Amino acid sequence: MTLHLSKLGQKLTRRSGILELMDDLGKAMSEHPEMRMMGGGNPARIPAVETVWRRRMAEVLDDGDLYERMLANYDTPQGQRLFIETLARFLNQQFGWDLMPANIAITNGSQNAFFYLFNLLAGEQVSGPAKRILLPLCPEYIGYADQGVNPELFVSCRPEIKHLDAHTFKYHVDFDRLQIDESVAAICVSRPTNPTGNVLTNDEVERLARLAEDNGIPFIVDNAYGAPFPSIIFSEIKPIWNPNIILSLSLSKLGLPGTRTGILVAREEVIEAVSAANSIVSLANGNIGQTLVEPLLKGGELMSLCHNVIRPFYEERSRQAIAVLHETMGDDVDYHVHVCEGALFLWLWFPNLAITTQELYQRLKQRDVLVVPGHYFFYGLPEDWPHRNECIRVNYSQDPQQVREGLAIIAEEVRKTAQPSS
Amino acid sequence: MTLHLSKLGQKLTRRSGILELMDDLGKAMSEHPEMRMMGGGNPARIPAVETVWRRRMAEVLDDGDLYERMLANYDTPQGQRLFIETLARFLNQQFGWDLMPANIAITNGSQNAFFYLFNLLAGEQVSGPAKRILLPLCPEYIGYADQGVNPELFVSCRPEIKHLDAHTFKYHVDFDRLQIDESVAAICVSRPTNPTGNVLTNDEVERLARLAEDNGIPFIVDNAYGAPFPSIIFSEIKPIWNPNIILSLSLSKLGLPGTRTGILVAREEVIEAVSAANSIVSLANGNIGQTLVEPLLKGGELMSLCHNVIRPFYEERSRQAIAVLHETMGDDVDYHVHVCEGALFLWLWFPNLAITTQELYQRLKQRDVLVVPGHYFFYGLPEDWPHRNECIRVNYSQDPQQVREGLAIIAEEVRKTAQPSS
Repeated sequence: MTLHLSKLGQKLTRRSGILELMDDLGKAMSEHPEMRMMGGGNPARIPAVETVWRRRMAEVLDDGDLYERMLANYDTPQGQRLFIETLARFLNQQFGWDLMPANIAITNGSQNAFFYLFNLLAGEQVSGPAKRILLPLCPEYIGYADQGVNPELFVSCRPEIKHLDAHTFKYHVDFDRLQIDESVAAICVSRPTNPTGNVLTNDEVERLARLAEDNGIPFIVDNAYGAPFPSIIFSEIKPIWNPNIILSLSLSKLGLPGTRTGILVAREEVIEAVSAANSIVSLANGNIGQTLVEPLLKGGELMSLCHNVIRPFYEERSRQAIAVLHETMGDDVDYHVHVCEGALFLWLWFPNLAITTQELYQRLKQRDVLVVPGHYFFYGLPEDWPHRNECIRVNYSQDPQQVREGLAIIAEEVRKTAQPSS
Repeated sequence: MTLHLSKLGQKLTRRSGILELMDDLGKAMSEHPEMRMMGGGNPARIPAVETVWRRRMAEVLDDGDLYERMLANYDTPQGQRLFIETLARFLNQQFGWDLMPANIAITNGSQNAFFYLFNLLAGEQVSGPAKRILLPLCPEYIGYADQGVNPELFVSCRPEIKHLDAHTFKYHVDFDRLQIDESVAAICVSRPTNPTGNVLTNDEVERLARLAEDNGIPFIVDNAYGAPFPSIIFSEIKPIWNPNIILSLSLSKLGLPGTRTGILVAREEVIEAVSAANSIVSLANGNIGQTLVEPLLKGGELMSLCHNVIRPFYEERSRQAIAVLHETMGDDVDYHVHVCEGALFLWLWFPNLAITTQELYQRLKQRDVLVVPGHYFFYGLPEDWPHRNECIRVNYSQDPQQVREGLAIIAEEVRKTAQPSS
């Protein structure tokens, strides 16, 4: 007999960008070791960081029955009391906020947190028309695109493009284009932005925060790559928080994606709603990430690791990759790279590509280079925009030799297919 | 400003039974060490089992960069290739099935798996009226109750009650009462049943499987406590599987709830649908549970642990608890206990209780005894049934002295409030 899926079932099982990406990533890791891994957002292996997680597990094993409690006890839907208290103190010290434990919830990864947030706020309403999440700067994270229980959960906005030099550009929020009305349930940005490596300016963030406040809706900031941890952000911006902001953090880019630990910082009502959803959808959180990280928040160790190891590592890798990019592309290819202000990616734009980036992705995969085609990141746009088929996302953070080879192959394939520069 | 929640948001944040239970459990563990923990489904601490998980982590730390890969690499949405292959071989050997890796998916706990399954199958349909999940034997697991994205996702059926002796009873599926039509998307049972400790007979399971097959719908069997692991099941039944059955397993009751590892065994289409949903809702699975358990599936160690340690431990605890129950209740209280054939619970029925079990639960909590009031387990029933307010679920598996004290306090409180036996 055939399997009959519900309406939501059919929506969730359409071949989504995030499924393709995670499938590619996992299969390449386990089945295609020859693949140059420039697709997914897997963090780099950094020996000085790995040493810390290895030491921490030894400490956990050595600390009475902490190891046993970590494995054998169900966490609460809100998260570990100790971890939450320590994190609240840590953030208050870092930024002068006045968080209470009631302002923090843990989830099984921040993908999970966003599934809760988007559907708790937007979609079908008890009365009145359905609401949406406004993404003020498109392209935006591929993993949000299919998270709506309701179809068309997102409305997004084309950015302004500023050319910083012949081959470097930066997106800016186009506030003239940004429309906000009663159909918007919340504003959401990732900062640093996945996929582009953009960091919204302080001015942009303040304007968006004010806009949200003026419209009585939350402002969600996905800070998975940002400060204070993992601090894969190459400028001195400070994260902001107030009771109208929902700030998301993650342990993944600290090198702990296998523990699935997401963190939300928000006002109490939001935390209660997320905890309630968490109990129903997931029952409890994983304990391991929280247990490994908690003591590092107390002393200065985590901050030192982020500032002295993690950030310099990624900053150096991104600089290297960009240098290699310019070297391999040369002047005969019409290419642009988004200024890399953080996160793990180079966002490459080929304005004269004769094929779609989906086709380019396939050709690159044939040559053992895994990237993510850019069109997945352009969802919720009210109008067509050719730019959506001209970009790819490339993870710059893996082995430099592989990145060099990968970029050279990308240049070759683009050169083969690009129309003459006008 | 006030937080405005969507329709689904309002549904998910109603004070659900599972939130109360998990909140109680977590808070009691971390904040009320004096509480007698007879509420949630936390597995017992079994030294011989803990020794194995401690040894396994030492082995992982010692096995090249396995520890680093476990923490630092994103899993695929389907789960770890190695774990899935090993598990398929293990189940085929145990039961003579012919599973392929494509028949197995991992999720972040089985609560998560059921959220996917129920909503992939039931609820709003692309065409025609909404469909429901049929629970053929009510009371059924509290954690399903609120998992529907659509309201009223479940329709359940009152069982027959057979009295085995003056104080012992067993529920049976009342096949005469069981109605199945086009509005049913799947049949679902937990076996052993949470909350009752009932194990559906082989005959009942075969009839339900046939009924599902005849109606062209899947039969979901939640085997979180069953065979082959953790084997908290006190009779020699064999789990059944065929391509029309979706079998759920979990690592939690092996003592690993902190790793959040659920397992589904089903035909390929179901596994693909669950993996797709997993990538959207959760991105990837936790790696730790899979990594700890995998090698134990290869030799006979896991089966030996289950048969020689875990099952005898729980069987002995349940016998002790039942003996204490009869001792403390005495003949002046009208009480019945469901025959305990597996899982972690005694299901107590007080036919002449003058108060609701919600009130009894509150009174017991005041006296540092945490139980779960039974009414939460009676959802989806088309008619009212006074029985729903006459039962409580008691975890028998914690410290025997605490269980003894807890049962004595339950007996006292019930005696205070029970109407004279008729």
